[in-house]
Amino acid sequence: MDELKARILSEGKVLPGNIIKVGSFLNHKIDTDLMSRMADEFGKHFDLSKVSLILTIEASGIALASICSLKWGIPMVFAKKAKSDNIENGILHSEIYSYTYKKTVNVMVEAEHIKPTDNVLVMDDFLANGEAVRGLTDVVKGAGASLAGVAIAVEKGFQGGGDRLRAAGIDVYSLAIIDDASDGTIKFREN
Amino acid sequence: MDELKARILSEGKVLPGNIIKVGSFLNHKIDTDLMSRMADEFGKHFDLSKVSLILTIEASGIALASICSLKWGIPMVFAKKAKSDNIENGILHSEIYSYTYKKTVNVMVEAEHIKPTDNVLVMDDFLANGEAVRGLTDVVKGAGASLAGVAIAVEKGFQGGGDRLRAAGIDVYSLAIIDDASDGTIKFREN
Repeated sequence: MDELKARILSEGKVLPGNIIKVGSFLNHKIDTDLMSRMADEFGKHFDLSKVSLILTIEASGIALASICSLKWGIPMVFAKKAKSDNIENGILHSEIYSYTYKKTVNVMVEAEHIKPTDNVLVMDDFLANGEAVRGLTDVVKGAGASLAGVAIAVEKGFQGGGDRLRAAGIDVYSLAIIDDASDGTIKFREN
Repeated sequence: MDELKARILSEGKVLPGNIIKVGSFLNHKIDTDLMSRMADEFGKHFDLSKVSLILTIEASGIALASICSLKWGIPMVFAKKAKSDNIENGILHSEIYSYTYKKTVNVMVEAEHIKPTDNVLVMDDFLANGEAVRGLTDVVKGAGASLAGVAIAVEKGFQGGGDRLRAAGIDVYSLAIIDDASDGTIKFREN
């Protein structure tokens, strides 16, 4: 998506450790008009008539998923993150490793919110190592629901998570894939 | 707001410790159509032509603030929560006590995202003791910006946070105020 790539180039900052900072429009201050156009882009790729639920994870995926939910008229659920000792009955969960926080956390959704008949579109603002998305797809599987695909705003292609999910047969669609930022310059994957 | 009150009565659960659970439409699974109508209700109370920024806090405030931002054409920022030892330069912050997690956390916003000329509408899905809102209004003050008011979906009136903020001269507008849930029955404050 050219508009998103242009915003990443003009406002994104590459920090040490290959961290791409886009807090001025994507995950701290939020440009909801841009997100509305991102929803349109996702709609060109996925068959939304067959999607019954959007599933994201707190915190920064919530903004994009909310906008898509409103525009598409499809309900959304956001998974919560918690320590492993908080798992209760009736909770769908999957353990993931958070590279940001350098610890294992649980992705949790109350079971009543995903039905076996649901066709779920997993969504997040960022995809790097793919741990969060793997946790969300685990939750979908645990609910006995089917996975429509994975919709991502910005994928850090050089961290391999997206390509691993694609190799496993999952339809991962990212609006911008950054394949290199090692010298401080952002290079996008060709469409 | 009658529709919101009806949903709280039909789907809300009162748990021990006066916890009101509304995860089926407000803060786990999200009914964004309802939120769109909540945005309309806020618009009847606040003069949105004078609001330049919506400020909320992660995680569950993000959905409502995103919907309001899109409908009103006003940008939004969500504050992050972090431990006190993570405060860097250029960060507006305020220490609050989280009754949910029983610990002190910092409410943080990067200074560049709130300008002294901004007129900020603080927003959250829940208001109980008012600590989160106090932290957000502190951040607005720290930025040298002005506060347009505080927009809340569900206020737990019996915990007093909203009335303390009103007594301090702040325009706190809540779409539903629960004044009692002690015997498991939810009673709303009269308009």
